[in-house]
Amino acid sequence: MKTEIIAVGTELLLGQIANTNARYLSEKLAEKGIDVYWHTVVGDNSERVAEAFRLALTRADLIILSGGLGPTADDLTKETVADVFGLVLEMDEAWEKELEHIFARLERKMTDNNYKQALIPRGARLLVNNHGTAPGIWLEHGGKIVVLLPGPPRELMPMFTEQVLQLLPERNGVILSRVLKIIGLGESAMEERIADLLANQTNPTIAPLAKHAEVHLRLTAKAATRGLAEVLLDATEFNLLQRLGEAVFARDEETMADKVASLLFKKMMTITVAESCTGGLLAHMLTNVSGSSAYFLQGQVVYSNRSKIELLGLQPELIEKYGAVSEEVARSMAENLRKRSASDLALAITGIAGPTGGNAEKPVGLVFIALAAAEGISCRKFNFIGNRETIKERAVMAALNMLRLYLAEING
Amino acid sequence: MKTEIIAVGTELLLGQIANTNARYLSEKLAEKGIDVYWHTVVGDNSERVAEAFRLALTRADLIILSGGLGPTADDLTKETVADVFGLVLEMDEAWEKELEHIFARLERKMTDNNYKQALIPRGARLLVNNHGTAPGIWLEHGGKIVVLLPGPPRELMPMFTEQVLQLLPERNGVILSRVLKIIGLGESAMEERIADLLANQTNPTIAPLAKHAEVHLRLTAKAATRGLAEVLLDATEFNLLQRLGEAVFARDEETMADKVASLLFKKMMTITVAESCTGGLLAHMLTNVSGSSAYFLQGQVVYSNRSKIELLGLQPELIEKYGAVSEEVARSMAENLRKRSASDLALAITGIAGPTGGNAEKPVGLVFIALAAAEGISCRKFNFIGNRETIKERAVMAALNMLRLYLAEING
Repeated sequence: MKTEIIAVGTELLLGQIANTNARYLSEKLAEKGIDVYWHTVVGDNSERVAEAFRLALTRADLIILSGGLGPTADDLTKETVADVFGLVLEMDEAWEKELEHIFARLERKMTDNNYKQALIPRGARLLVNNHGTAPGIWLEHGGKIVVLLPGPPRELMPMFTEQVLQLLPERNGVILSRVLKIIGLGESAMEERIADLLANQTNPTIAPLAKHAEVHLRLTAKAATRGLAEVLLDATEFNLLQRLGEAVFARDEETMADKVASLLFKKMMTITVAESCTGGLLAHMLTNVSGSSAYFLQGQVVYSNRSKIELLGLQPELIEKYGAVSEEVARSMAENLRKRSASDLALAITGIAGPTGGNAEKPVGLVFIALAAAEGISCRKFNFIGNRETIKERAVMAALNMLRLYLAEING
Repeated sequence: MKTEIIAVGTELLLGQIANTNARYLSEKLAEKGIDVYWHTVVGDNSERVAEAFRLALTRADLIILSGGLGPTADDLTKETVADVFGLVLEMDEAWEKELEHIFARLERKMTDNNYKQALIPRGARLLVNNHGTAPGIWLEHGGKIVVLLPGPPRELMPMFTEQVLQLLPERNGVILSRVLKIIGLGESAMEERIADLLANQTNPTIAPLAKHAEVHLRLTAKAATRGLAEVLLDATEFNLLQRLGEAVFARDEETMADKVASLLFKKMMTITVAESCTGGLLAHMLTNVSGSSAYFLQGQVVYSNRSKIELLGLQPELIEKYGAVSEEVARSMAENLRKRSASDLALAITGIAGPTGGNAEKPVGLVFIALAAAEGISCRKFNFIGNRETIKERAVMAALNMLRLYLAEING
C-alpha cells in the first residue's frame, strides 16, 4: 500500500515549525509494514491543497492529510477533500453535542465557526478527538483510503495510534529496523569493506548515515512476522560484524556513553577525566548515564595553564617546552590525574577547538588524547575538522572510543 | 519567486528523522521575502527523485534539493538532476584537490567513490562545503534556479547562509522574525502578563513556544522593506520587555552561554565552577563560546564525596551533617573554590539528577546552586521536574541565569 502524507499549514512553509507529524506518522506506518513514498507540505490555500490531493490520488493508495481541520477561515482541508470527491458535508450530531458539552464546561460561548468542526463528508467515519475540538475523518472512496487528522501533534498522535492504526488493513508482514553504530572508520572506508552488501543486499536493506562523530548503518528487513524479520536482521548483523569488527560500538538506542558505562560496571573500574579543549563535555557524557557515580569519581576542566599546573601537578617546564597541546602534556595530565585521584583509569584531552588559537604547526582540530591505566599510558593524536562544537564532540567520542577499546580488550 | 524544497532521503520517509532542513531553509527564505509554496520528500530512488524534480520545474522558479550528494551508491540527486536537464558531469579539479587534501590530513585512503563527489554538472557553480566532503551546486538552467545542498544539517545550514543567500535575487517585501528568549517565568505566567498582545496583535504576530529550560516568543512581521519590518519588531519588543523585564535573557541566535560570556568579557571577570549532579555540563556550556579561556579558569566535576573533600577542601562533618545535597554544601563548594582558584566568581551546583537517589525529604530534581563573589555568597534552591538529562539542563540554565542576573546588576 503506497502512502502519501500531506501536511497543510503555512507555518510549515514559513519555517516556524518542522513537520514532526510526518516523521511520527511515517515511523508508525513503517512499523506496520506500510510504505510511505511521499511527504508533501502545502500552505492553507484551497487550490494548492486540492492540487496536492489530486496528485496523491494518482499515485498513492492511502493518503493522510494533517492540519486545516480547525474552526477558522484558514481551515479548509475537509472542505477541499469533500469538494474533490464531490461529497456533501453533513453535521455529525453526536460531535455537535460533544462540542456543546466542551464549550459549556469551559464556560465559553460556542460560535458558528465552531459548529463547522462537526461537519463531515457523507459516508465518512468520524475519529474522536480526545484532546481538542476538531475531530478526524476516515474516508474510503474510489478504492482509496483518505484520513484527515488535526494538526497539533498532541491531538494527531493519540488519534492516529488509538484509532487509525486499528482501522488500517493488516498487511501481511512487518518492516523492522536495526541501527549499528560505527566509529573510527570514515564513511567511505566503511563502505569499501561492505560494498558488495550495500550493492546487492535487498532484505534487509543497508543504509549508511554519517553523523558528526559516528556512522550509522540502518538495516531494514521486511518479513511475514516479527520473528522472521529478526532472523534476517541477525544474519546481516553477523555478516557486518565480521567485516567491521570492533568499529561497531553499539546498536539502536545505545550510545557510546552507555556502552562505556556498561563496560566500566562490568569490569568494576573507576575513572577520572582531565579536559582542556573539550571543556567538560567528556565528564558530561560519562555522567549522563544513571548510576555513573559508581565509576565516575571526578573531572577536571583545566582550561588555563595555571590550572593544569596547580590541579594536576604538571611541570611548568613541560608546558613551556612542548606546548599545552602536545603528546607529552596529554600523557602527563593522564598519569598525574590517575595517581592523584587513585582511580583505576584516567583520560586526558588537550587540543585546539578553535576557531582561534591554531597555527601552521598546530592547527585548529589538533587533539591529543591519553589514557592512563595501571599497566601504562597510551596516547593518540587526532586532526579533527569542523567548527568548535563539532571538534569538541569528535574529540570526546574519540576519547570514549579509546576507553571502550581498552575495556573490551582487558580480561576480567 | 515561487520556491519548492525537495528533500531526498529514505530515512525521512521511514520517520527516522524529521525534515529540519526544510524548516531551516524556509525560515531563511521567508526572511528574504521569498515564498516557499511546497515541501516535498522522496526516497533515495532516482525515478521518484526525477518525477518530483520534473513536477517542481512545472510550478516553481527556485528549486532547492537537499540530500543525496555523498559518496555512496544511494546518493543520486546530482546525477538525476543532470540527467533531467541533459547535462554531463565534469570533474571540478579544485574540489578534487581539496578532497585529496582533506583525506591526506585525516590520514585516510581516498577511494574512487569519494572522487564522485567532485563531479558537477557542466555550467554549474560549485558551493564549497566547509564542514564535509560533498560540495553543493548552484545551477541556472531554462529560466530556473536549482540548488543542491548536502543532507547533514551542519553542512547544509552554513552553506546556505554563507553562499546561497548571497546569490539569490532581492525581493520586494520581507517577512522578518525575531525570537525573544525567556527564563524564570512559566509559560502560563508569561502568557498572563501579555495575554492582550497575544490575542490582538497581528503584525508582528507573537507565538510562544516552550522549550526545556526556557520559553521562546517568536515575533513575525511583514513589511515592504527590511527596515520597516525591523521597526515593527522593535516596537513590539519594547512592549514585551516592559511586561517581562529581566526574564528576557537573549534574542535570536544568542544563547544563555553567549549572553553570560559577553557580560563576563565586559566586566573582565573570571569564573570557576564546581559541579556535582550536572557532571560537567555547566563547564561545557561556558566553554562552548569561542575565546572562553579569557574568563573560564577551571572546572571541577566533584561527583564523589571524597572528591568534594579533596578537591574543594569541604569539611567531611558538613557533608555528614547536612548531606551532599544541601544549601550548606553548595555554599561551601562555591566559597572554597573561589578562594582556591583565585577567580572573581565561583558557581557551584549540587543536586539529585535521578532517576535514582531521591527520597521524600530530598526528591529527584532538588538542586542547590551557589554563586560566590567578593561581596558574599548567594544560594538558591530549585525543584526541577523531568528526566535525568532535562534536570541537568534545567539546573545548568538556572545557574547561568543566576550568573547573568548578578553580572547585569553590578556596576562597572
